[in-house]
Amino acid sequence: MTKSEYNKIETYMLSQMQDSAHDKHHVYRVLNWAVDIYEHEDGVDFDILVAACLLHDIGREKQFTDPEKLNHAKIGGRMAYDFLLSLGWREENARHVKECISSHRFRGKKKPQSIEARILFDADKLDVCGAVGIARTLIYGGQVGEPLYIMNDDGNIVVDGGGAEISSFFQEYNFKLKKVYDSFYTKRAKKIALENKKAAVKFYSDLFNEINKNYSNGMKNYKKLLEE
Amino acid sequence: MTKSEYNKIETYMLSQMQDSAHDKHHVYRVLNWAVDIYEHEDGVDFDILVAACLLHDIGREKQFTDPEKLNHAKIGGRMAYDFLLSLGWREENARHVKECISSHRFRGKKKPQSIEARILFDADKLDVCGAVGIARTLIYGGQVGEPLYIMNDDGNIVVDGGGAEISSFFQEYNFKLKKVYDSFYTKRAKKIALENKKAAVKFYSDLFNEINKNYSNGMKNYKKLLEE
Repeated sequence: MTKSEYNKIETYMLSQMQDSAHDKHHVYRVLNWAVDIYEHEDGVDFDILVAACLLHDIGREKQFTDPEKLNHAKIGGRMAYDFLLSLGWREENARHVKECISSHRFRGKKKPQSIEARILFDADKLDVCGAVGIARTLIYGGQVGEPLYIMNDDGNIVVDGGGAEISSFFQEYNFKLKKVYDSFYTKRAKKIALENKKAAVKFYSDLFNEINKNYSNGMKNYKKLLEE
Repeated sequence: MTKSEYNKIETYMLSQMQDSAHDKHHVYRVLNWAVDIYEHEDGVDFDILVAACLLHDIGREKQFTDPEKLNHAKIGGRMAYDFLLSLGWREENARHVKECISSHRFRGKKKPQSIEARILFDADKLDVCGAVGIARTLIYGGQVGEPLYIMNDDGNIVVDGGGAEISSFFQEYNFKLKKVYDSFYTKRAKKIALENKKAAVKFYSDLFNEINKNYSNGMKNYKKLLEE
């Protein structure tokens, strides 16, 4: 891929994500992880991979308009296909990028088949691991108004989401973040994920212990101190 | 304080913070930290302290309407004063609670004078320390659309905010969170803060290293791989 072509694809990506400061950095990190994995794999088409990484989340803005029905992977795949054809890409290559993008969702039905699709999938999942994954999940929680945790009437943290009407960071961590480490296709991504996992486990444990210490030192005492 | 009176003040607090799931938990944590500190101090008026903790952030909703001009500590102090008088509190005690609330801001000009005001100040600052402080700052960043970090043109993270038009989590950490550990009045709060500090330092370091590893393994390689 030439620098000029890279710049055109990057400019299109930025134009589709102009209001979301986080997502732009996420895209660059996914590209970085993907290039790292690329260096450890044989027979990967570099241009397909770079285009797929840069464009993998361009369908997000449209998904926000109707999250129940619209799937950003499917929409983004089609948008990327049309855009790459307009740049003069061969139909076969534009279709390949579309396939990569449409199969990058963690919970999607469609599984990544080609090596390029699998690297994009892995690179995107690496950004849910470790300290970065924790930080992104907390920022997302702030965007959608999700609390850090929910307490039950006994003053204990609800981690399983049982009976809770709203989800929380603790629930996201236990039911999503913890599970991502088993989902990788490439050895290199698995290695990076396991290295970064330690930071996520440590942070969650520190957070949980701090909050528990806070409630056990405080709440039990002030309940005792209140008069009947 | 009787349980019945506690419940009345708690209900008023919740009515003022009904849309902010995080703030309610923050209030309970501040109360918990305060009761922990209370157990280590002499001559503290328990009722003043509990009322001040429960009501310390009730002015936040109003501050949101005009953040430049309005100060939630000042507004909240006045609201608490009126509310406590309506409950039949003595004017002197309602005024004491008002004084505690109006001097609890980290960057406020007014410094906390009474022991109850200092405990509220310390308890509120403890909630900016450690893993909890990290999590709250990230959630707040999501609410106001602040990115995790800003990169300069050389691909390095801007941590000092120099020239950056928008602030970031990295900037908040380096210019606010790091400094809070020196600001405590009570020995007990200082001790808890230093214990919790380790988690914050570890997380920031893990996050910074992960992102640097990502950029150094990826960006340098793909720039090399692009043709002129």
